[in-house]
Amino acid sequence: MTEHFSTIVIGAGSGGMTVAIGMAGLGRKVALIEGNHVGGDCTNVGCVPSKTLIHLAKNFKQGMNPDEVLQEVIRKRDALRDKETEEVEHLDNLTFIRGMAKFTAPRTLSVTHDGVSREITADNIVIATGARPRMIDIPGLPKERVLTNESLFDLTNSPKHLIIVGAGVIALEMAFAFQKLGTQVTMFALDSRPLMTAIPEASEAIQAELERKRISTHYNASAQNFDESTRTLTIKKGEQLITLHHVDKVLVAIGRVRNLESLGLDQVQVKVDARLGILVNSYGETNIKGVYAIGDVTPTSAFTHSANAQGRRVVQRIAFPFLPIAKKEPIFPNATFSDPEVAAVGLTEKQLAEYCHPGIIKRIRVDFKTHTDRGYTDGIENGFIIVDAVRLTGHILQATIVGARASEMISFFTLAISQKISLYKIYRLVYPYPTFSSGILKVADFFMRETLPNLGKEIAAYVKYRFAKA
Amino acid sequence: MTEHFSTIVIGAGSGGMTVAIGMAGLGRKVALIEGNHVGGDCTNVGCVPSKTLIHLAKNFKQGMNPDEVLQEVIRKRDALRDKETEEVEHLDNLTFIRGMAKFTAPRTLSVTHDGVSREITADNIVIATGARPRMIDIPGLPKERVLTNESLFDLTNSPKHLIIVGAGVIALEMAFAFQKLGTQVTMFALDSRPLMTAIPEASEAIQAELERKRISTHYNASAQNFDESTRTLTIKKGEQLITLHHVDKVLVAIGRVRNLESLGLDQVQVKVDARLGILVNSYGETNIKGVYAIGDVTPTSAFTHSANAQGRRVVQRIAFPFLPIAKKEPIFPNATFSDPEVAAVGLTEKQLAEYCHPGIIKRIRVDFKTHTDRGYTDGIENGFIIVDAVRLTGHILQATIVGARASEMISFFTLAISQKISLYKIYRLVYPYPTFSSGILKVADFFMRETLPNLGKEIAAYVKYRFAKA
Repeated sequence: MTEHFSTIVIGAGSGGMTVAIGMAGLGRKVALIEGNHVGGDCTNVGCVPSKTLIHLAKNFKQGMNPDEVLQEVIRKRDALRDKETEEVEHLDNLTFIRGMAKFTAPRTLSVTHDGVSREITADNIVIATGARPRMIDIPGLPKERVLTNESLFDLTNSPKHLIIVGAGVIALEMAFAFQKLGTQVTMFALDSRPLMTAIPEASEAIQAELERKRISTHYNASAQNFDESTRTLTIKKGEQLITLHHVDKVLVAIGRVRNLESLGLDQVQVKVDARLGILVNSYGETNIKGVYAIGDVTPTSAFTHSANAQGRRVVQRIAFPFLPIAKKEPIFPNATFSDPEVAAVGLTEKQLAEYCHPGIIKRIRVDFKTHTDRGYTDGIENGFIIVDAVRLTGHILQATIVGARASEMISFFTLAISQKISLYKIYRLVYPYPTFSSGILKVADFFMRETLPNLGKEIAAYVKYRFAKA
Repeated sequence: MTEHFSTIVIGAGSGGMTVAIGMAGLGRKVALIEGNHVGGDCTNVGCVPSKTLIHLAKNFKQGMNPDEVLQEVIRKRDALRDKETEEVEHLDNLTFIRGMAKFTAPRTLSVTHDGVSREITADNIVIATGARPRMIDIPGLPKERVLTNESLFDLTNSPKHLIIVGAGVIALEMAFAFQKLGTQVTMFALDSRPLMTAIPEASEAIQAELERKRISTHYNASAQNFDESTRTLTIKKGEQLITLHHVDKVLVAIGRVRNLESLGLDQVQVKVDARLGILVNSYGETNIKGVYAIGDVTPTSAFTHSANAQGRRVVQRIAFPFLPIAKKEPIFPNATFSDPEVAAVGLTEKQLAEYCHPGIIKRIRVDFKTHTDRGYTDGIENGFIIVDAVRLTGHILQATIVGARASEMISFFTLAISQKISLYKIYRLVYPYPTFSSGILKVADFFMRETLPNLGKEIAAYVKYRFAKA
């Protein structure tokens, strides 16, 4: 009675679907297990509804009804969910199984649905169960006022005053979107600045925009309690107590928890780091042969695009084990769809400090407002390209862009970094005028002007520091 | 009394300023001659006011006053013009001369201003006099109803019904911008489709958007006459006469004429082709040693960004003649800021037909609406990436993008083409989700899927056609 598959994928989110559809397309017998909605976070409670909301909010004009915007978000989300569900239910070679999976042996799962369990086995099992919002308890706050990204996109009435707990990607994206719909937005967070994962300059630019748009922010702050009779939330900042009035909803966006508990991973000795998640090698395999993990459950990937990229590598590894696969994971860019957007690729501040002597790094900053004509025509206040490059060679270590089109512009740098294209070569390119991208030329221009006239010193610095670390 | 300079630049537009400011910055004694406004077309009657208008029109909301938008365009244009004028008038090593220049000998110019002439000489003379709008005569049309890009941005009242003659870059940019301000727009042109310089698929997408936005268009059509008493313009399309009613203004945007007549080029035997303009080698020198030409007056450059690129090469050539300079001009991308934008880089259709056997080219088309989730969340109807690549090697011959962020996305392809990065390498990159740029991954994905399974045939086609032409 135990059915056997070539590959079982646990979790029908973006990463899981990439593997399941990819393997099925190659003629392998695949099972895809999902306990909730097909499409995972991205389709249901993440990228798709949030970017639909952001797009509609951008074009929101006075006189329009914000509730209709929220209802349109739901309509588009449901339509895509239905389409994807239909797809996985009718794909050749793919068996879609509703239920919760648990390992009973390294390549055996027990899947439970409505109290009924069945056992299935496979040559390969891919864990893609993702993550869920981390919660906090705010004394006195009734459940019906609490939102997470999982409930936010079921709202059909826009709140008058929305409190957002957190200052990360989701918090910022929703703060800017709801502000445009006419909602009063107040953010508070334990963090000392918005978007802690970005370089401090990006946080500064975003903070300036939050203030321009009259979004209130409180950093180094935590929730104290809520009084339902007066609808006031008290937060604590150091010794100071701050009272927020007329609160309608509280969106909790303070991070994510991996969905690992019910998988029975300890049964099969899959190595899990309490902080980092399931440990995998560069092509996604865990310490147990034939057991893979991708997406949010792994240490390196918290984005749909990185989960998909990991999924593609797993497909290649399982289906074409003889084909060469790069030892290193590809470079994962990141993007926050705030207003302006923030996008970055390359080494983080921490990695830069760890791997490179500061003497060998030249940091270049180009501001759209002062250094590009497009910034002038579009009246841009806050936005820039910051590039850290190796002195003398001009190789790019990281690029961060804050700007209206940052999420599209960043791929230029992903290509440049992955192909080791130096700023000298980038200087020779021609960029359409007037665009924000012509700021890339300015980056290369500044780099040359600030390093070439001191060639002697630059060579000395390069030689001195090149092998100082690493 | 004849003053001598290291370099004289004729024309203070973008290209001319690049050379003049660049040479002055290197300590050379420079003269910059301008008969009209500093900043040339770009600052005064081109990119800067047009992109300011496009940006303000995009954010134009019902209830706002379109005349205030036009007045803001003038304010921003004048502010930049004043800043740039101030700059060239007070730059070290640079003498700014108002007047019209005429060659009297290969390195001697006579400059006339207010009827007074002076003679100046130089080691190098750079011609950067640009171009002006081509005009047509429409019988019965009073002068005060006629606009070109040179008078358009002095308008302080937005027309109710604007007729646009032409279907090129300027015509399309202004059609979409004025439509957003609430102006009724009617376009007609001798051309058979909008944006004749782009691939036909781009014209189709733009035509669909013109229709969605209720901009009337008539192709293969020419002006017949205007009746001022009824304010009707009659145009002719084949045998058919079409009457356009309630006409306020007529914008003529049917191409450009090079500003060469008054330069006395025949006096010094500088070679000029009647159709192509001043003939120059790859670093901008004419047949006369020490006489250079850049920008609109040359055959290859009708954009601010290409004029600037040519200017940078001339500076390098004059100031550092010993440094190597690439034999070929760099690749010039182009961008039209219509809605959606159109951007392209690489070989034109004509060049493709000339240099490549069709059997060796694989064309890939990715539509944002159907192939990217960003197209779905943003409700995109018309927009795509079309790439022509060499079968088997995956090297990109041309890329055309139609989409909201095309002008920023195109630089990715400029980099890929100039660095000869194949679609196989592009396939390995990770693109932020959900972006239009993830369509680039789809391009690479489709290319592999459509060519790899037929590897035998692909190799045969490659071998057969590789040397068939060229």
